[in-house]
Amino acid sequence: MQRYFVPRDQMDQQRVRISGDDARHIQKVMRMKVSDQIECADNQGEAFLCAIEHFEDDLVYATVLQKLTTNPELPIHVTIVQGIPKAEKFDTIVQKGTECGADRFIPFQANRSIALWKKGKQEKKLTRLRKICKEAAEQSHRLLVPEIYDPMTLDQLITYGDQFTYKMVAFEETAKVGAQSGFPTLIKKMSKDDPLLAVIGPEGGITTEEAAQLQEHGFVLCGLGPRILRTETAALYLLSAVSYHFELLHGEVDE
Amino acid sequence: MQRYFVPRDQMDQQRVRISGDDARHIQKVMRMKVSDQIECADNQGEAFLCAIEHFEDDLVYATVLQKLTTNPELPIHVTIVQGIPKAEKFDTIVQKGTECGADRFIPFQANRSIALWKKGKQEKKLTRLRKICKEAAEQSHRLLVPEIYDPMTLDQLITYGDQFTYKMVAFEETAKVGAQSGFPTLIKKMSKDDPLLAVIGPEGGITTEEAAQLQEHGFVLCGLGPRILRTETAALYLLSAVSYHFELLHGEVDE
Repeated sequence: MQRYFVPRDQMDQQRVRISGDDARHIQKVMRMKVSDQIECADNQGEAFLCAIEHFEDDLVYATVLQKLTTNPELPIHVTIVQGIPKAEKFDTIVQKGTECGADRFIPFQANRSIALWKKGKQEKKLTRLRKICKEAAEQSHRLLVPEIYDPMTLDQLITYGDQFTYKMVAFEETAKVGAQSGFPTLIKKMSKDDPLLAVIGPEGGITTEEAAQLQEHGFVLCGLGPRILRTETAALYLLSAVSYHFELLHGEVDE
Repeated sequence: MQRYFVPRDQMDQQRVRISGDDARHIQKVMRMKVSDQIECADNQGEAFLCAIEHFEDDLVYATVLQKLTTNPELPIHVTIVQGIPKAEKFDTIVQKGTECGADRFIPFQANRSIALWKKGKQEKKLTRLRKICKEAAEQSHRLLVPEIYDPMTLDQLITYGDQFTYKMVAFEETAKVGAQSGFPTLIKKMSKDDPLLAVIGPEGGITTEEAAQLQEHGFVLCGLGPRILRTETAALYLLSAVSYHFELLHGEVDE
């Protein structure tokens, strides 16, 4: 079933008013009719099964049938700090990362980031990523659309990290020397609703200097298995492992 | 470092002879010179650090410096049976699945597979996938290039499954009712070098009828978390979870 995120002020207990792109999508792309069903989520943790009631100009009105009780959010809140990769790779990371339950994405201007987000183009890039994020959240029936922050430098990231108890860096060199226990050791300490800040390098990984500085500020250096993962695969690996650990192995799924 | 797979009959304890596309890649793309280092793997479980010795017409000769001892292969052997997806998605699945340690891919002509591999085009598609597979195995420094089998029907898959003790189907309906313990229960029974046969549906998933038939023949229906995953994400989730379980959580990495 198609899910749409609708601003809270456009919905109450009985009725939902859908406008803009979503209303157009319902009418032009999905070609829905009165009484067809959709899911509406408020991006604050609630979602409802609704039936289309009537169309009015560019608006779609739907009646709330029932509250949906499935919670597909990851038990812990994972912020992916992604070293800015080349070209369209960030699109893939945001799309797949949203599907796999990420809570937030922070572009990170790493030493080895080749692509520079110039001031003029940054807003456009972020707008695009936020759109991809919303669509992926709808597609995977999330209750919340992950946030995308403005890019950070290493210093900004270190300062931002001060508020996190659990923070890590995916560091290939750690994997190479066979130290694979850092990541499971870290997440075994975590409980439901704890936030995790996870840094992933761009192509080529983060540098030894970046790793050392982050480690000095409490970030744990972690290997993500003995294979060399491309930058766009690392976030998926991490989120899948978190899901497996909390949702499958330890059954922390809200029903 | 760049890795190349070289047929066993082109290498001995002292020397490697590289021909064809790889020789061209070394000369034209990488523009390597005498004494530059590369890694050569025999696709039978061994890899060597080598130094380029000399160039001769279309051939590259390299001297073996030392045997490499890192083993980046997953501790269990995962065969991904992939419901044939639309367009180029299979390319992504093979590329990322190789990176994440898959042992073998079997295209599966599922009920909901929209793309049909016509007889005439099948060989071309398989050749393309095998090339992607080899390149991904080199990129992620695997010791083995995963195999890609000819497509199977449901009946062929059931017969093929007879030789497997551990077999599963990713089934969305199982995830929906909150049954998430099937997958971890299955892999907890497995030991190093055991083979796992894992079926993943195409877009829209496998049908209830397919699931029922597979279940009747010993395939365990498994959920892969409470979020709806796209078909091209499911194999990655599964392989990442297997890696996390055996390589990170239980430290089954050969060094």
